[in-house]
Amino acid sequence: MNYTKHDLTDTIVALSTPPGVGAIGVIRLSGADALHIVQRVFGGKDLTKQKSHTLHFGTIIGEAGKVLDEVLVAVFKGPNSYTGENTAEVSCHGSPFILQKIIELFIEKGARLAQPGEFTLRAFLNGKMDLSQAEAVADLIASTSEGNHSVAMRQMRGGFSHEIQKLREELVNFASLIELELDFAEEDVEFANREQLKLTILKIQSFIHSLLQSFKLGNVLKTGVPTVIAGRPNAGKSTLLNALLNEERAIVSPIAGTTRDTVEEVLNIQGVEFRLIDTAGIREAQDQIEAIGVEKTMEKVSQAALLVYVFDVVETKIDEVLADVASLQREGLKMLIACNKMDNLPSYKPEWLVNPSDPSIPDFFFAKPRPLDSSFIIHHSSLITLSAKNGMNVPYLKEKLYAAVIGQKIGTESTIVTNARHVEALEKAATSLDDVLQGLAAGVTSDFVAMDIRRALSYLGEITGEVGVEDLLGNIFSKFCIGK
Amino acid sequence: MNYTKHDLTDTIVALSTPPGVGAIGVIRLSGADALHIVQRVFGGKDLTKQKSHTLHFGTIIGEAGKVLDEVLVAVFKGPNSYTGENTAEVSCHGSPFILQKIIELFIEKGARLAQPGEFTLRAFLNGKMDLSQAEAVADLIASTSEGNHSVAMRQMRGGFSHEIQKLREELVNFASLIELELDFAEEDVEFANREQLKLTILKIQSFIHSLLQSFKLGNVLKTGVPTVIAGRPNAGKSTLLNALLNEERAIVSPIAGTTRDTVEEVLNIQGVEFRLIDTAGIREAQDQIEAIGVEKTMEKVSQAALLVYVFDVVETKIDEVLADVASLQREGLKMLIACNKMDNLPSYKPEWLVNPSDPSIPDFFFAKPRPLDSSFIIHHSSLITLSAKNGMNVPYLKEKLYAAVIGQKIGTESTIVTNARHVEALEKAATSLDDVLQGLAAGVTSDFVAMDIRRALSYLGEITGEVGVEDLLGNIFSKFCIGK
Repeated sequence: MNYTKHDLTDTIVALSTPPGVGAIGVIRLSGADALHIVQRVFGGKDLTKQKSHTLHFGTIIGEAGKVLDEVLVAVFKGPNSYTGENTAEVSCHGSPFILQKIIELFIEKGARLAQPGEFTLRAFLNGKMDLSQAEAVADLIASTSEGNHSVAMRQMRGGFSHEIQKLREELVNFASLIELELDFAEEDVEFANREQLKLTILKIQSFIHSLLQSFKLGNVLKTGVPTVIAGRPNAGKSTLLNALLNEERAIVSPIAGTTRDTVEEVLNIQGVEFRLIDTAGIREAQDQIEAIGVEKTMEKVSQAALLVYVFDVVETKIDEVLADVASLQREGLKMLIACNKMDNLPSYKPEWLVNPSDPSIPDFFFAKPRPLDSSFIIHHSSLITLSAKNGMNVPYLKEKLYAAVIGQKIGTESTIVTNARHVEALEKAATSLDDVLQGLAAGVTSDFVAMDIRRALSYLGEITGEVGVEDLLGNIFSKFCIGK
Repeated sequence: MNYTKHDLTDTIVALSTPPGVGAIGVIRLSGADALHIVQRVFGGKDLTKQKSHTLHFGTIIGEAGKVLDEVLVAVFKGPNSYTGENTAEVSCHGSPFILQKIIELFIEKGARLAQPGEFTLRAFLNGKMDLSQAEAVADLIASTSEGNHSVAMRQMRGGFSHEIQKLREELVNFASLIELELDFAEEDVEFANREQLKLTILKIQSFIHSLLQSFKLGNVLKTGVPTVIAGRPNAGKSTLLNALLNEERAIVSPIAGTTRDTVEEVLNIQGVEFRLIDTAGIREAQDQIEAIGVEKTMEKVSQAALLVYVFDVVETKIDEVLADVASLQREGLKMLIACNKMDNLPSYKPEWLVNPSDPSIPDFFFAKPRPLDSSFIIHHSSLITLSAKNGMNVPYLKEKLYAAVIGQKIGTESTIVTNARHVEALEKAATSLDDVLQGLAAGVTSDFVAMDIRRALSYLGEITGEVGVEDLLGNIFSKFCIGK
């Protein structure tokens, strides 16, 4: 689907609040006729004559003069509205039956049911926000944690756009100067200082590089870290899972029924979400871990970015731990090894703890935990001693989980890319800038240099929607919820 | 819990839109400090200085100056608000995470999480609506059909209250006059005409009686008609169920996921809901119907107000039909008998159709359907010939279902009582009025007559909340959703 400003001739309507029963539900209309359409069924003041940003009480009157509801209508006059168009927001009683009837009535009176994201699409097409800001609106609505909320909010408020804008302006300057040279081609002048251009491009490339680097973190913040807890039967996986989750569950939610609707088990550590992949499957897989390498287990592991391997300090033999860890290991998978049931230790010393001077055996099983610096711990892994049963060192494990993914605190200032579309555009812009640099080095003519710069500009412009995005819009906005 | 106006000193806050992800979510605050509390975290104009019924764009700022959201705040100044108090409605992005954070912030800044129905309770305590209107708000939000919506809307708009009010006024007049007589007790005067009083009371009693009669219908409109479809295996119960439901499902809902959330199968006929009791159970029970009288089947039937008995015109023997119908029969249960698979008839004539003059055999198996007036059809039942498979006469069955419950079209003017609390108060008022009449007949002294009238007044006043309802309020409002 392609969109242009010409599509904006009609008035759209949708329920903007979540479906279901609530105290109130809000129906939003946007378009030149928004206020007229509401007025046709409104018992109250003439809405079309009211000032923008005012609220009006009245009734919605259905067929045969029947009152459908008593409502409050918020009046917004374009361009001073979210979409930039005339907008009405009708606050009704939150009965799905009533809301549906009223929406049907508005459709009957001339509105059209909005497509997903169409209000925000109109905001973009009417110049109320750029494309990356519009995309951030969807991310903001989907935000579920400190981490992905911060990133989306920063992007919606234009932080990202401004930086891209600044880069583009510097480049546009050079492109214009070089294109000016083309008019004087026979005189062989250079208006654009080639050395400065090179420096500018290197600076921009370095910035693009840091943006691209941030995507790994951005993606984790946006979608959560797929995490598996694995271990042999009776290693204490379920107890550990509950210990990790219970602490969080203790934070009482004032909004009932809003958390963990879609993902069954989500662990939130300092604003970063750890998604425990298909827990039912994991539990099943856990029982199969004795036969490490079983297809199903490995399939779960292959979806994970992080794996916590749990073993029983008393019952598990060190070579079993080594064998399990070796067979679970996989490129790109970070592993934490949790040495569980430390509470049983005082009454028991496993055979492999007998000789502490054995270099293959770690010397960490006492006092406060620390990462194990020992030959048997594979790269990227660290070992944490804990007791899932009494919660000992569970907070420490959380710190380790967080550190394994983030490495450092998330700053609130730095720009983080979370959107795969932006990554693609940035990568293409970087390639075009490489071409500029190569061209400059090879001493190609101004017209080729200008062309490569224009290409880079175009890719950067795609991010904010300034150029050539018409055919992307359908795809971008179809991911929104209806009513936004 | 008892409530009085003195409880209204603090400011309450709640999410007023349904939980879940949506384009927007609305947080409502009410109380003297509502606007000040929002202002403490608002980046924008000074809300406390804005006019009532205006909207203001700005940011909500959390700890460390972090922007939690860009919002629109609707400002209402008491008494011109729903609750009669200062009110703010904050339209946020519809992320449960953001909404929860903002509510927590408002609580931190001095608001208290609202109890269920507390906004409407305040509207009642502040004299914005009477108690029966407040109760209708909850009914309106819960409304799911034309029928229960109409009744709730009428009650919320005060139709019920006005009538009760009028009755009370007439009685108050008499009570005052009679009480005046007490001051002149020794002079033996009668300010109140006893004959007129009697006529007034009879008029009121007749009205109360009609209100009480309306409760049966009111209750059906409000909660739906518990209905069972029963029959022997292969009678075509599932096909009939689907035929009844499919037609309705064809009405495409523009709001996805809003219908039939709680009750699995609801059939809506002309605005009246037929709730198919525990369908899984019914289906199970259906298979047991050969052994009619089996406990489980009868338990289902005992919950029903309406039963559709389906049989196969080709396969079922008439004595089987008679036996089933007889064993399903129950006091207060209305039965419809659906003679199914009429489409198979042309190629087959069941034995009991051979001799049409047999008085035990109905003569209805052809042409257009009509109620069967035959000796074997029990009281309250009627027989409908149909084909669930091709939909023949399914609309006619629907008409019959509707007629079995409603009997006639629901008027939009007549007052219908839907609330058990109102029924109780009306019954008590009627009893008190009986006492007045008996007292008058026995010639008791004015003080006794006055006392009985006052008691009747008090019961009528309970309906609108004018007298003695403090101890009911907790119970009434706890049934509301939070945020209303």
